[in-house]
Amino acid sequence: MARLLVMYKTPKDQAAFDDYYMRIHAPLAKKIPGLRKYEISRGRVASPAGDSGCHLVAILHFDDVEALKSGLASPEGQAAAGDLSNFASGGVDLLFFDTNEI
Amino acid sequence: MARLLVMYKTPKDQAAFDDYYMRIHAPLAKKIPGLRKYEISRGRVASPAGDSGCHLVAILHFDDVEALKSGLASPEGQAAAGDLSNFASGGVDLLFFDTNEI
Repeated sequence: MARLLVMYKTPKDQAAFDDYYMRIHAPLAKKIPGLRKYEISRGRVASPAGDSGCHLVAILHFDDVEALKSGLASPEGQAAAGDLSNFASGGVDLLFFDTNEI
Repeated sequence: MARLLVMYKTPKDQAAFDDYYMRIHAPLAKKIPGLRKYEISRGRVASPAGDSGCHLVAILHFDDVEALKSGLASPEGQAAAGDLSNFASGGVDLLFFDTNEI
């Protein structure tokens, strides 16, 4: 399996971010070909130090990194990526990788 | 469900990190009470820009954030946390949160 982690830093207007994310962005991201599972953080994103500076984390599951890259390169993936600038006013960090369960 | 993301920045000696992680740290982390599933990245941790600066990502699964906090606060959790300074020479970022599948 592979994972795409999308970490949204705290935006200027959190309520507007949440509304846009669920209403517009998540439906776009759900259309990415090869997406097997889509999880998002619920409530506070914390760190051991307390405030994490992160507002929302999305974990998108794909079969492997090749499928993930193909999904992101597809028109649907490009539409989702292109939508980030419409709401991710605090910035966003993305990481992707294959995984092993140990 | 809840997730603990542990993101290790690129260490000084990657081979020594990998050896220590699998031989010493992972067995310590596996003892954390309430841990339901333990995944680690395999191969390169990438970002859309290319190099991510991240060497390894661990995703630890717990039933909820309360179980996660209890696990981290336990002697086994404290032992795993205390071990980080023995090998995470590039630094480490931790985030934890409850999740919803959407």
